[in-house]
Amino acid sequence: MKKITVLAGGVGGARFLEGLLRAAPGAEVTVIGNVGDDITLHGLRVCPDLDTVMYTLGGGIHPEQRWGRDDESFGVARELAEYGVGPDWFTLGDKDIATHLVRTQMLEAGYPLSAVTEALCARWKPGVRLLPATDDRAETHVVVRDEENKRSAVHFQEYWVRLHAPDAEQIVFVGADEAKPAPGVLEAIAEADVIVLPPSNPVVSIGAILAVGGTGKNIRDAVISARAPVVGLSPIIGTAPVRGMADKVLAAEGVQTTPSAVAAYHGADLLDGWLVHDTDVDQVAPVEQVGIRCRAVPLLMKSLDATAEMARATLEFAAELAR
Amino acid sequence: MKKITVLAGGVGGARFLEGLLRAAPGAEVTVIGNVGDDITLHGLRVCPDLDTVMYTLGGGIHPEQRWGRDDESFGVARELAEYGVGPDWFTLGDKDIATHLVRTQMLEAGYPLSAVTEALCARWKPGVRLLPATDDRAETHVVVRDEENKRSAVHFQEYWVRLHAPDAEQIVFVGADEAKPAPGVLEAIAEADVIVLPPSNPVVSIGAILAVGGTGKNIRDAVISARAPVVGLSPIIGTAPVRGMADKVLAAEGVQTTPSAVAAYHGADLLDGWLVHDTDVDQVAPVEQVGIRCRAVPLLMKSLDATAEMARATLEFAAELAR
Repeated sequence: MKKITVLAGGVGGARFLEGLLRAAPGAEVTVIGNVGDDITLHGLRVCPDLDTVMYTLGGGIHPEQRWGRDDESFGVARELAEYGVGPDWFTLGDKDIATHLVRTQMLEAGYPLSAVTEALCARWKPGVRLLPATDDRAETHVVVRDEENKRSAVHFQEYWVRLHAPDAEQIVFVGADEAKPAPGVLEAIAEADVIVLPPSNPVVSIGAILAVGGTGKNIRDAVISARAPVVGLSPIIGTAPVRGMADKVLAAEGVQTTPSAVAAYHGADLLDGWLVHDTDVDQVAPVEQVGIRCRAVPLLMKSLDATAEMARATLEFAAELAR
Repeated sequence: MKKITVLAGGVGGARFLEGLLRAAPGAEVTVIGNVGDDITLHGLRVCPDLDTVMYTLGGGIHPEQRWGRDDESFGVARELAEYGVGPDWFTLGDKDIATHLVRTQMLEAGYPLSAVTEALCARWKPGVRLLPATDDRAETHVVVRDEENKRSAVHFQEYWVRLHAPDAEQIVFVGADEAKPAPGVLEAIAEADVIVLPPSNPVVSIGAILAVGGTGKNIRDAVISARAPVVGLSPIIGTAPVRGMADKVLAAEGVQTTPSAVAAYHGADLLDGWLVHDTDVDQVAPVEQVGIRCRAVPLLMKSLDATAEMARATLEFAAELAR
């Protein structure tokens, strides 16, 4: 398993990758990062998922929060509040702003996001090749009912951070159909020895990545036709997400919040194998019934050791599926 | 003296204005601010002179330094240094960056600098109407000799901050000829009861403002043809600038560093009166010889009281000239 390609969202993906790098120290790991959550705030282009991966693997992540920078300060944000400049529901730290300044300036100078990400990673040395799913704008929007019960589409960050994930009616990957996979993405999928879907949000992280390319050369088709086994880890344990509010966006897609329903949502054409938490052993049969090989192993990332063990189980399972 | 119009650079202009507001509490003060020092750093549009006036009169200036914000922090700047992103010779504080973020975002949204400045002043309430000399780009560049003795033009900030004002060969107001005075500027000059040139740098502050408009409707001509008396305060005491490195840019213009030489540089067509420091009483005759009325009064802004007294002397002198 020399070449490992991982489709990653933010916190869940980043933590899994920490374990994977420990479990497979010699591997060439390519991470295809979600950009659906990206947002422009105060004129700064913010890529929360790419940065969470970069900061986590580069040793700059806030250790408890698991997103944002360690030893962060908020001098700029306090002053923006003094100006009464919104939004007030998304606070950027000073160190984090430096990243966004570098990124925004490079984007404005004409560099694609993939080149910008590579430049930022030259400092962070995350130990993986971090690629945005696309260099084009593909933003996740969520259709909700507003106070007057009218349908209204909001940016994912507004849905998640400002509104705290109310009931959603629809998830729309705006621009994903027209977006092209970033340079290296389709190659990293085609040439992989194993493709992993870590325990990230199945809709707004993994789904947003897979949607890139639409009816053209898209990431979902590339994963389906890849020679490598595709193994996913359930972000649902029992009937609840391990972290975050995935149940709300699953409901919008008409998917139950169970490990087997998420596996079926991804589909047997996409997934070769699916790992569920060891207490969800009853989910193995329903997953296998839809044509996806399934195994129950501990899936709680409660320590780096535990996460490395999960990654090891993932690679073993993939090796077995490749036979 | 109801309407007072002041052409102001940074620190010197801002301090004088503090005194003026105390000396003439009922007056309508319009400040025409220098934008020749403006620079784009890390993608942020920075207007040092406008901000120095705004922060000083709004109560947010660093009390000793006299530029930049009080209680400033440098979280963003330290992190930019970690990225190895230059320039390393111009450090922006976190609070200051908030101002530049608001400005840059408004400029990118299409607002002219004058509207942006008005919006920023809605918070700072400087007690004056602060107008940029122009909404167009008019940047001061300085021609110097580089290490290989080749002529090279650098942005004023690079000349001043990075190179610490070496001998200059030429001062060029790039874009000033094509720049139009900002809305309200020509009116504020035409309708003024008195026009004041505070002890700012005569070349790169006052000169850069006067140059705006070039061969079209320019600020210099507007001041010359204004009905109000025009009084300037010498930034030179003895044979040295009170503050800064004005001697270097005066030399580039072929002007000696004396109060009378600076008065002659501005010209008898522009100036009706010129104030020199009380120890420079020998300069009164040479100034009057070129056709400019001159008086020697204390010109050291060592306290707000002293500065208010200077402003009072300026207004009295102007009243006398208006008769």
